Amino acid sequence: MSTPILYRQLADHYLSAIQAGTLACGERMPSVRKLMQLHHISLSTALQMCRYLEAQGWLEARPRSGYFVRQPRRMNLAPAAEPRPVKRIDPAQFVGIHERVSAIIAQGQRQVKVNLARATGAPELYPHQQLRQLTSSILRQHPYLLTKAISPGGNRELRAALAKRALDVGISTRADEVVITHGCIEALNLALRAVAHAGDVIAVESPTFYGLLQVLESLGMKALEIPTSPHTGISIEALELAMQTYDNIKAVVVVPHLQNPLGSIMPDTHKQRLVSLCEAQHIPLIEDDSYSALCNADNIPTACKHWDKSGNVIYCASLHKIMAPGLRIGWMLAGRWQARVDMFKYAQTRYNEELSQKVAAAFLQSTHYDRHLRRLRVTLRQQREKMAEAIARYFPEGTRFSMPDGGVSIWVEMPAYCSSQAVFDAALEQGILISPGLLYSNSNRFDHFLRINCGTHYSEELDAAMRNLGLIVAHQKPRKAVA
Amino acid sequence: MSTPILYRQLADHYLSAIQAGTLACGERMPSVRKLMQLHHISLSTALQMCRYLEAQGWLEARPRSGYFVRQPRRMNLAPAAEPRPVKRIDPAQFVGIHERVSAIIAQGQRQVKVNLARATGAPELYPHQQLRQLTSSILRQHPYLLTKAISPGGNRELRAALAKRALDVGISTRADEVVITHGCIEALNLALRAVAHAGDVIAVESPTFYGLLQVLESLGMKALEIPTSPHTGISIEALELAMQTYDNIKAVVVVPHLQNPLGSIMPDTHKQRLVSLCEAQHIPLIEDDSYSALCNADNIPTACKHWDKSGNVIYCASLHKIMAPGLRIGWMLAGRWQARVDMFKYAQTRYNEELSQKVAAAFLQSTHYDRHLRRLRVTLRQQREKMAEAIARYFPEGTRFSMPDGGVSIWVEMPAYCSSQAVFDAALEQGILISPGLLYSNSNRFDHFLRINCGTHYSEELDAAMRNLGLIVAHQKPRKAVA
Repeated sequence: MSTPILYRQLADHYLSAIQAGTLACGERMPSVRKLMQLHHISLSTALQMCRYLEAQGWLEARPRSGYFVRQPRRMNLAPAAEPRPVKRIDPAQFVGIHERVSAIIAQGQRQVKVNLARATGAPELYPHQQLRQLTSSILRQHPYLLTKAISPGGNRELRAALAKRALDVGISTRADEVVITHGCIEALNLALRAVAHAGDVIAVESPTFYGLLQVLESLGMKALEIPTSPHTGISIEALELAMQTYDNIKAVVVVPHLQNPLGSIMPDTHKQRLVSLCEAQHIPLIEDDSYSALCNADNIPTACKHWDKSGNVIYCASLHKIMAPGLRIGWMLAGRWQARVDMFKYAQTRYNEELSQKVAAAFLQSTHYDRHLRRLRVTLRQQREKMAEAIARYFPEGTRFSMPDGGVSIWVEMPAYCSSQAVFDAALEQGILISPGLLYSNSNRFDHFLRINCGTHYSEELDAAMRNLGLIVAHQKPRKAVA
Repeated sequence: MSTPILYRQLADHYLSAIQAGTLACGERMPSVRKLMQLHHISLSTALQMCRYLEAQGWLEARPRSGYFVRQPRRMNLAPAAEPRPVKRIDPAQFVGIHERVSAIIAQGQRQVKVNLARATGAPELYPHQQLRQLTSSILRQHPYLLTKAISPGGNRELRAALAKRALDVGISTRADEVVITHGCIEALNLALRAVAHAGDVIAVESPTFYGLLQVLESLGMKALEIPTSPHTGISIEALELAMQTYDNIKAVVVVPHLQNPLGSIMPDTHKQRLVSLCEAQHIPLIEDDSYSALCNADNIPTACKHWDKSGNVIYCASLHKIMAPGLRIGWMLAGRWQARVDMFKYAQTRYNEELSQKVAAAFLQSTHYDRHLRRLRVTLRQQREKMAEAIARYFPEGTRFSMPDGGVSIWVEMPAYCSSQAVFDAALEQGILISPGLLYSNSNRFDHFLRINCGTHYSEELDAAMRNLGLIVAHQKPRKAVA
């Protein structure tokens, strides 16, 4: 059992050197014999390491010459395109996004062998053992926890722990301003209900997470899709234009960090401009910041809420992507809508169960949390690299994507004639579940995109699935002339 | 430790005989000496037993003659009044019920020694130990439960267990029709959102649970309060009149069994008429059946949904009043609105956490559940008797109430000049939290009522609190001439 770990450690060591440029593209790797001497390893370990890096695209074997450093294939792919400049902004009509999503979800319930549709990491990437231990120990300390009526307002310790964590993204707040919700999705619901009514227009990023489009549909609100860059997030210019064109925009919703599905991260200057623009226009800004702890750098980016001086920004976040997908704990800071949000939360679902709140609080307060996050970031980075390489290796010419600077997924643009629905159907036939681009807009603009999860350990099974998926995409035929 | 249990067992034995008429009112109890011989008990146990029954109002000590059977004082109180016949029905205006409720809840956060405001039993009345054990054992069986993304649709076993339990109230349904919610309050939200919009009128019982009034307020719907009998529930005649008067009634919401706060139970004939009326008028009927398992008789009453042939009845219920107040598990059967409810549930809060669903399912499937319910019903009955006796003993002349045939509370009418807000304030000064009648209507019609919780073991502390509460009520002064 120790050999695989050793070859992996060495592979990471050489990968760092390659990425840092210490070993440049085209240079020769130390020979297998040299590696054995240098690291006191067996022949098989040395070979394992080299083959592993070769499989990932970082080394190339030349007969009788040894291994040479190369650029991974994904470097040859074009980066994701910027959205086209906007001339006119139209609020998308109600097109029944929920039915699309439900149909996809219902189909995904059966025969899935490889799930690439998730928006979280695999269960083993999260601190399952510690959370289990905390659950047992909290139940021992509070024997009546499951049979005691829940006290109003959400668990005090959790609210305090989250207020403290908000400092990491530059927000200074108090525990009693933290509203605990059933996932970030409830936070978004409450935020939207607090600031807008049925019939109102809400500006959103395009593409955006289908969950948000469903929330808007279920509340009878209209999504106005604003072009969004895969690198810098929502286009402030397009948003300004939209605000000039429509006088019934009642909120703007953004995911500033690791936007779902794009993976973009807004530069600080953009975030500042966005906060000022919304404040000047008296339009509330709703910020969904569920992913920022998964950014590559250990410096977590600064939330829009940081620049909010008037309570115009509603901050929403959750723990299920970063700490425990099985706990449905979201939270929010509702700014000047705090009283309305408190009322809606109480009238809608009362308070979350005490046990999971206590477990989350205990874990957040421990030193395990930061350690877990550091480990999670490293693992996800490695898995994204491997998935990117697989896409580059197996997908047909014309495929494009930009490597996100963190997170659990990659947003892939297939050749324009591909249909994500057709790819979805064909993949499901083989037990592979993907998240088709058509879910990410009320328009069909992203029908040739896929969101691919990178939260799972790159196994042979996963490699086979990626190869099959690549074949499926490659077999798509142009349906009509593309403009 | 064995003596207190012994005297209680004996007291229950003699209480049964008194309630059955075997020992009639005015008859002499066996002497203390006789009791000692009969039951092989000590003098102190015999005396303890007699004093206990005396304290509850069932025995009277006459100097040098011994103990005599008597009617408890509560038998002398007038029963709760029927609502006045209705001439005109007016939808109540938005009066900010949430602000009232929030103020009351916020005040109740501090300095409470005795909580009479609850709508559940005390934590020790529920199967805390078994639920804890199930939690641990489920976490052992499913080590990744807390870190695994929740699978769509709600836990299969829990839905099956609840579908099976629905048979008890005469409903035949399938597991996949059961929607699991965050408490009954979310079920009511989803039901109302599925059938009505902001601005619509919803017919409700009067008085009704403030939670429902808050839901309506938060959704921008108007409550039309229909007079409701403390014995037979909502007045079908008044409801018919309302339907003739208003053409924008979009739903009727009732709690047919152990109505909150009245405690009334609708006769089967009324339920049948109600179901037919709503169907004939094409108005959805929403049934909140959270309490029926707490009815005295072991024959749980039949739900309105039983008579529903067209899917016009939405059935809502929960486990937190009957099984585990700390688990926020509600559920519903949405009839012909199933697809809409599924959509709203998914878009609003996704699915409940897997762990508590699995725990609830395991407990429901076990034989412990029925045993727990039987025990809970007996305990609550005894506690209601004691609280009723305390009200009769300590509250001033003019107090009225009807003993409910189950449940966790008693709805008490104080003399008409009393203000439940004033009583609330004065009681809170002494660390006693009550639930004031003004919360149970958008009007001030029930300002001289209190809902008193009977879910707690009748201790000396509770007796002292009831005495103090009685004094507070007795000290209320008529504020104005009462019509």
